[in-house]
Amino acid sequence: MKVAVVGATGLVGGVLLERLQARRFPVSELLPFSSGRTRAAVRFRGRRLNAPRPDPRRLAGADLVFMVSSDEVSERFARELAARGAWVIDDSSRFRLDPSVPLVIPEVNAAAVTRQTRLIAGPNCTLTGIAVGGYPLHRRGRVRALRIASYQAVSGAGREALLEFRAQSLQAAPALRAGGMLPELPAVRSRALPRAIACNVFPQVGSFDGRGESGEEVKVRHELRKIWGAPRLEVAVTAVRVPVVRGHSLAVWLTTERPIAPEAARALLRRAPGVRLWEGDRYPTPRDVAGTDPVHVGRIRRSGIGDRELALWVVSDNLLIGAALNSIRIAEMLVEKGWLRPRNP
Amino acid sequence: MKVAVVGATGLVGGVLLERLQARRFPVSELLPFSSGRTRAAVRFRGRRLNAPRPDPRRLAGADLVFMVSSDEVSERFARELAARGAWVIDDSSRFRLDPSVPLVIPEVNAAAVTRQTRLIAGPNCTLTGIAVGGYPLHRRGRVRALRIASYQAVSGAGREALLEFRAQSLQAAPALRAGGMLPELPAVRSRALPRAIACNVFPQVGSFDGRGESGEEVKVRHELRKIWGAPRLEVAVTAVRVPVVRGHSLAVWLTTERPIAPEAARALLRRAPGVRLWEGDRYPTPRDVAGTDPVHVGRIRRSGIGDRELALWVVSDNLLIGAALNSIRIAEMLVEKGWLRPRNP
Repeated sequence: MKVAVVGATGLVGGVLLERLQARRFPVSELLPFSSGRTRAAVRFRGRRLNAPRPDPRRLAGADLVFMVSSDEVSERFARELAARGAWVIDDSSRFRLDPSVPLVIPEVNAAAVTRQTRLIAGPNCTLTGIAVGGYPLHRRGRVRALRIASYQAVSGAGREALLEFRAQSLQAAPALRAGGMLPELPAVRSRALPRAIACNVFPQVGSFDGRGESGEEVKVRHELRKIWGAPRLEVAVTAVRVPVVRGHSLAVWLTTERPIAPEAARALLRRAPGVRLWEGDRYPTPRDVAGTDPVHVGRIRRSGIGDRELALWVVSDNLLIGAALNSIRIAEMLVEKGWLRPRNP
Repeated sequence: MKVAVVGATGLVGGVLLERLQARRFPVSELLPFSSGRTRAAVRFRGRRLNAPRPDPRRLAGADLVFMVSSDEVSERFARELAARGAWVIDDSSRFRLDPSVPLVIPEVNAAAVTRQTRLIAGPNCTLTGIAVGGYPLHRRGRVRALRIASYQAVSGAGREALLEFRAQSLQAAPALRAGGMLPELPAVRSRALPRAIACNVFPQVGSFDGRGESGEEVKVRHELRKIWGAPRLEVAVTAVRVPVVRGHSLAVWLTTERPIAPEAARALLRRAPGVRLWEGDRYPTPRDVAGTDPVHVGRIRRSGIGDRELALWVVSDNLLIGAALNSIRIAEMLVEKGWLRPRNP
């Protein structure tokens, strides 16, 4: 299979290439492309490959195209490639809410894809944890309302943000070393992120709309409704960036129509696909989940409000199940069904 | 006035001494004590003072005693000193839920203190932000339910925790410097805190009870009910530690009996005592509020669930309004009322 990766030189692209190899995805030829601003090289199966700017002619030869770049790049190529018969799995937000494009997490709504589909969107990395971890509870008790406070890792904002976090952390280190117990932190420069992130948290992911919600908060609401097929689901989100490299955490309150006892919820999640349940006093943290495949769920308990509300703590690797791994799983599903095959073997 | 400070050598104690000086609180003689484990010295008004282990005889001479130590130390001294006529302002959790002891934030429930009171408790540092910032909304619309996800600074866990955070951050710095874009963080040793805190977050503050709630989560619920005089208030909390030195943040959803529009909530908070309102696209972060007195509230908006629910973002200095400053304000109120006076002038 000829597999193109647009955005192969980015953070998600790097993780995607690594997992394609580790999972032995049937790639006969890899066509890596940058996101367009730069040229660079990537490594795949021990070989160094050039990753030029995306080029329609070279892309046209691919049977499968992973797009892990920007909305603009997806806008420019995705529809056209799909119309010419390639399967396109797009991780940008460009097509997620388009009614003609399925928005897919295989553990949740694999059936949204048909033999005729060609363009498939993967969801925002922040909602994946609750979309997967909350779905068995939704099926059992019908979720009416979800409240989510996020603790989002810096890698979710991309390479420049991670470099900024690194620079700020190194700037703060001497103050932590020299200062008294309550060091004055040095002022820092923020460019990729809206505010200082070292030794800080800030409640802004994306820009704010007229109602005071951030882009991320709106995405989570609408994408979750689409993936669960629950258009009237009420969703309240406060999206917050925290000084963590990798792994998005969510504090979730989930109100169901039919009550679900915490033990029943645990029983459902113990056998749920793609979920690892943490029980007793154990719970997942970003350091535990970085580099792992599952959505990790812990601290399931009654919320203390009403008799139909559970509290949960959900952590998942934003670059894997939140992005690259979900895209690969969609492709694996297409291969299993026999829908994705080499067009010019 | 003879003023004793038990726990003067701790984090809160240091901030308390600094603010007593800065606010020109009428101290004729300062009697600083350690928490009992160690002896040490403190500085006050440019002089170095020994801080011995707390001693009943020396404490008995104080007109006012600030207790900023542990539950055990408060248990040992507070009642006895109050019975002998001293005013005791206790920042431990020992007496907070005792029906005979008022739990006080002057901006909210100053009237809980009478001329006859001698022992007064100050609340947990995590709930202060919403207790102050949410109170005007409670008075206007009667809050029925509160959901709170916290982003708690390491200084809230005390000196040893802060040293651990510092050590882990310095350990992580070389990995951030040398690593690729996604560095492998070194494994770290955790003693004062339950889990690694550098480049991590974890949902545990205190130990878990049989229902899966942490000590901090239970405290917030019960103390908030008492301070607001709202015994049926429903409160759900997920308390999370984040790699921040100073400043607790809260993502809050507040459901009222009578709807309050976001603009009306902002109008109330613009003139609320002890509150600084952030409007438009501006919002407070821990770095902004460290060392400041007010409770900072921003991002007031409709939550997206029902028509009676607001979302808020609340940040406050856990060592100041969350602890030392609140204790001093209680003492200042007693002085203003003429209830706290030198007993042996």
